[in-house]
Amino acid sequence: MGNCWQSLGPQNNTYIRLSLPAVCFVWQIAMIILFGVFIRYDKESDAHWAEHKKAENLTDIDNEFYFRYPSFQDVHVMIFVGFGFLMTFLKRYSYGGVGFNFLIASFGLQWALLMQGWFHSLDLTTGKIYIGIESLINADFCCAGSLIAFGALLGKVSPVQLMVVTLFGVTLFAVEEYIILDLLHCRDAGGSMVIHCFGGYYGLAISWVLYRPNLHQSKRLQGSNYHSDLFAVIGTLFLWMFWPSFNSAITDHGDGQHRAVINTYIALASSVLTVYATSSMFQKRGKLDMVHIQNSSLAGAVAMGTAAEFMITPYGSLIVGFFMGIISTFGYVFVTPFLERSLKLQDTCGIHNLHAVPGMLGGFIGAIVAATATEEVYSKEG
Amino acid sequence: MGNCWQSLGPQNNTYIRLSLPAVCFVWQIAMIILFGVFIRYDKESDAHWAEHKKAENLTDIDNEFYFRYPSFQDVHVMIFVGFGFLMTFLKRYSYGGVGFNFLIASFGLQWALLMQGWFHSLDLTTGKIYIGIESLINADFCCAGSLIAFGALLGKVSPVQLMVVTLFGVTLFAVEEYIILDLLHCRDAGGSMVIHCFGGYYGLAISWVLYRPNLHQSKRLQGSNYHSDLFAVIGTLFLWMFWPSFNSAITDHGDGQHRAVINTYIALASSVLTVYATSSMFQKRGKLDMVHIQNSSLAGAVAMGTAAEFMITPYGSLIVGFFMGIISTFGYVFVTPFLERSLKLQDTCGIHNLHAVPGMLGGFIGAIVAATATEEVYSKEG
Amino acid sequence: MGNCWQSLGPQNNTYIRLSLPAVCFVWQIAMIILFGVFIRYDKESDAHWAEHKKAENLTDIDNEFYFRYPSFQDVHVMIFVGFGFLMTFLKRYSYGGVGFNFLIASFGLQWALLMQGWFHSLDLTTGKIYIGIESLINADFCCAGSLIAFGALLGKVSPVQLMVVTLFGVTLFAVEEYIILDLLHCRDAGGSMVIHCFGGYYGLAISWVLYRPNLHQSKRLQGSNYHSDLFAVIGTLFLWMFWPSFNSAITDHGDGQHRAVINTYIALASSVLTVYATSSMFQKRGKLDMVHIQNSSLAGAVAMGTAAEFMITPYGSLIVGFFMGIISTFGYVFVTPFLERSLKLQDTCGIHNLHAVPGMLGGFIGAIVAATATEEVYSKEG
Repeated sequence: MGNCWQSLGPQNNTYIRLSLPAVCFVWQIAMIILFGVFIRYDKESDAHWAEHKKAENLTDIDNEFYFRYPSFQDVHVMIFVGFGFLMTFLKRYSYGGVGFNFLIASFGLQWALLMQGWFHSLDLTTGKIYIGIESLINADFCCAGSLIAFGALLGKVSPVQLMVVTLFGVTLFAVEEYIILDLLHCRDAGGSMVIHCFGGYYGLAISWVLYRPNLHQSKRLQGSNYHSDLFAVIGTLFLWMFWPSFNSAITDHGDGQHRAVINTYIALASSVLTVYATSSMFQKRGKLDMVHIQNSSLAGAVAMGTAAEFMITPYGSLIVGFFMGIISTFGYVFVTPFLERSLKLQDTCGIHNLHAVPGMLGGFIGAIVAATATEEVYSKEG
Repeated sequence: MGNCWQSLGPQNNTYIRLSLPAVCFVWQIAMIILFGVFIRYDKESDAHWAEHKKAENLTDIDNEFYFRYPSFQDVHVMIFVGFGFLMTFLKRYSYGGVGFNFLIASFGLQWALLMQGWFHSLDLTTGKIYIGIESLINADFCCAGSLIAFGALLGKVSPVQLMVVTLFGVTLFAVEEYIILDLLHCRDAGGSMVIHCFGGYYGLAISWVLYRPNLHQSKRLQGSNYHSDLFAVIGTLFLWMFWPSFNSAITDHGDGQHRAVINTYIALASSVLTVYATSSMFQKRGKLDMVHIQNSSLAGAVAMGTAAEFMITPYGSLIVGFFMGIISTFGYVFVTPFLERSLKLQDTCGIHNLHAVPGMLGGFIGAIVAATATEEVYSKEG
Repeated sequence: MGNCWQSLGPQNNTYIRLSLPAVCFVWQIAMIILFGVFIRYDKESDAHWAEHKKAENLTDIDNEFYFRYPSFQDVHVMIFVGFGFLMTFLKRYSYGGVGFNFLIASFGLQWALLMQGWFHSLDLTTGKIYIGIESLINADFCCAGSLIAFGALLGKVSPVQLMVVTLFGVTLFAVEEYIILDLLHCRDAGGSMVIHCFGGYYGLAISWVLYRPNLHQSKRLQGSNYHSDLFAVIGTLFLWMFWPSFNSAITDHGDGQHRAVINTYIALASSVLTVYATSSMFQKRGKLDMVHIQNSSLAGAVAMGTAAEFMITPYGSLIVGFFMGIISTFGYVFVTPFLERSLKLQDTCGIHNLHAVPGMLGGFIGAIVAATATEEVYSKEG
């Protein structure tokens, strides 16, 4: 029962007994102080909203809450059940995968509310950050970057190391997000570049630094079994089903959210078919590889992160899903083994194939769709 | 790890290695071409919605998206996690159950968008099908018919055969739906007849054709174990909890959706009690049979599919649930063994008791409620 | 396969075979009669809503349904998957935990619609109870009280005894809720006092009455194993993720719901860090105890039940979560063993630490926040 936890790190146990409580307590107290200084309710979650509503002649349902809350809850499920259970596939680390995902996401979202607040929504006159439902969604998004990185490190790092990875991950995320969205004025509602490409390469960089030569020995411990694979499928399916909410959660009201959902739903369906096809082609005796199904079937949605809200057309979405399913499965078959052999880069969950490459391609797809959009198509912006 | 996949079909492995990729790639490319020719965004998901909104003096929240999206996500969970995990109860086919459910639903929803579009919403002036959130819900519904049929075939067919079953299932679904809803002008929002009765008898017909004499031998392989049963309960519960969304997803705005949720919620609660009662009556030593709990507790909602949106009254819903729990459990105890012995009809998941019979009775209940409705009750239609 | 069910009770099997069906059938028939006499659709779920809408110049989206439905579905998941799977952690009772949770919640919510109706919403002129979406949420809440009590009794009572516990639990709930909300005019939207404190002490009182001296013998049977613990984590996570919906489901439209979500989300994140810290401090060799993670990480939300809708401020929520994580984990380490040794009080799931104490403290926190609120903060009520 216990060794599943300890097996996540090669460290001295007394050290963990002191360091993990110390880090958690000190950082949580720091969060309380910083929240006390900076964080307040925004206009729509403050008790003064009634006045505002009256002044602007709004009805109850015009609160931002009702536009975003269903999507928020779906994204929340993706972060904790989706990412968490996707990481249970290693039979020795099942509990560690979902358990440390829980810990670092809980810390990460608090730190994200502060970091994203300072960079994006600090009110310079009052010196406060005003948070609402959209801030909570963005904080979950920001955590996703560090959870993706965790996927490359699964089974190799201690909980304290993971907390440090999350601290820096969230900080870097806020900076790169600021550069891409605020300075370069890109749109990236589902975070192909901002979340997936960043999280993927951040995790790979750390994994490269932490390379341990006794790779083959640890590999023996990393096998999956029948039930750990079924638990991982729970994670896969909740990510797959709720990804339309992920890509539409912070897009424009009305047609923006509506279109992002349709495009993501279609791209995901298309991915699944090409993953099953590619996987059975490359496996001995036509058997399907569970790792491909668990991961690559999500690649279509990662690559739609930027373009989902655009007028990419339904068949455009199908085409994106089609190629992403193939590219991602190829990655698991050829690229991950190559990275391990040649670059000494261990990537436990294969985040290079699920997040890094599809995220980067998603950025290109978004750029192409945006560049080819005519004024006639987006008449409302014309 | 691998034999769970291959065990789904008695086929030659080299054949699978060629045929599954071929079917997936060719059919997916056909989908892309057909989507390119026919499918476009509808008015509310198109970038021109801003003009439409202005012209009709609407606010952001008046987009159909906000009326349907929470229900859509629940239905989506039912299709992939609900049906998928319900089919994990066979310990040898757990992964195949959820994995092939994933594949055929992903193909089925694309084909459904086309088939339902051609029959129901083809714009004859432009020759295009315009899709929005309601189309996605209907596509999920349409898949449900084929997934129900899969329940009778579990453990007996190959993935390629399942793809063919889905292709024909979706096609037939669109035709019978057109006849029932458009030609006969029935209302069947939760699909008692259109989805459950159709899916049940479609699956049973195929199972009858595919009868294999070595029944008893395969039965030995079909047992469940403790953990596969717990995974199946995940499927049961997500179906049970979200069925109010299923029956209300495409009903009228306002009181229609509201009433369908209340009626389904009540009928389901009533079913559970009579299933536990009937099951413990018929089992040796009062033990409960997990198969009954996993399936029959859902029968109340299947039978409310047609009537849920009507003024059936809360106690009427309780009565429907009461009898459906009993009838469905009786089916598992007496009818399924009879069908196997006498008609050579193998029904792995017992879809006859969960979908076919409750669906048919649901159609009758709907007809009775509609026939007895007075103008006073439905004053808005008066 | 079967012994998991029968092991829940030490009773004679023939007795169960007669008594469980008898109780289920008789009580369900009683429900049908009482629903027939008392329960009707409310204004917003009745077919006459169209007239009402016209008269008051409302639009479709102004139906209460659209304000509450997403939260309702989340609460529903908490009751059946959250509480149900949280109780699967005992490897011998996994199926019994989730299976009897299903049975008693299905009965409890019907009885709750009646009891809460009689106490809170009986229309004295017509003698009817009018139900809508908010009634369904309240019925789920009312069940939660009895499900919490089940947590203390897990593995020690028969299904018929559980039905009786639920019958009295729901009845007492409606009475104490009437006293606290209607006579004392407290506000307790998330039910710190009304649900958690009540459910906790109700369960402990019954467990004390049912004390069996062969404690140590049964303890041997109560162990968890790796997979039963992973199933329990599914329960934990769905409770944790959807608790913002629980605490906001019946608060005021607009800023009330919005603020309750933010406060609960923040308090939960804070709890998680202090639970991990406290747990690893007290365990030998720094290993984390799964029981703490599964339960105590929820304590922050229990304690926010009363205060979540108030202007407690974001850092106030963090502070509540911080201390509740510590107090609850301390409870598992010190108080539960003490209660068993000294007071002969067996508490299988530790509901004293998760519900009773945090619920009571939540009541105090709510009172303090309400007492210190200035008129300026709540200007809308000024």
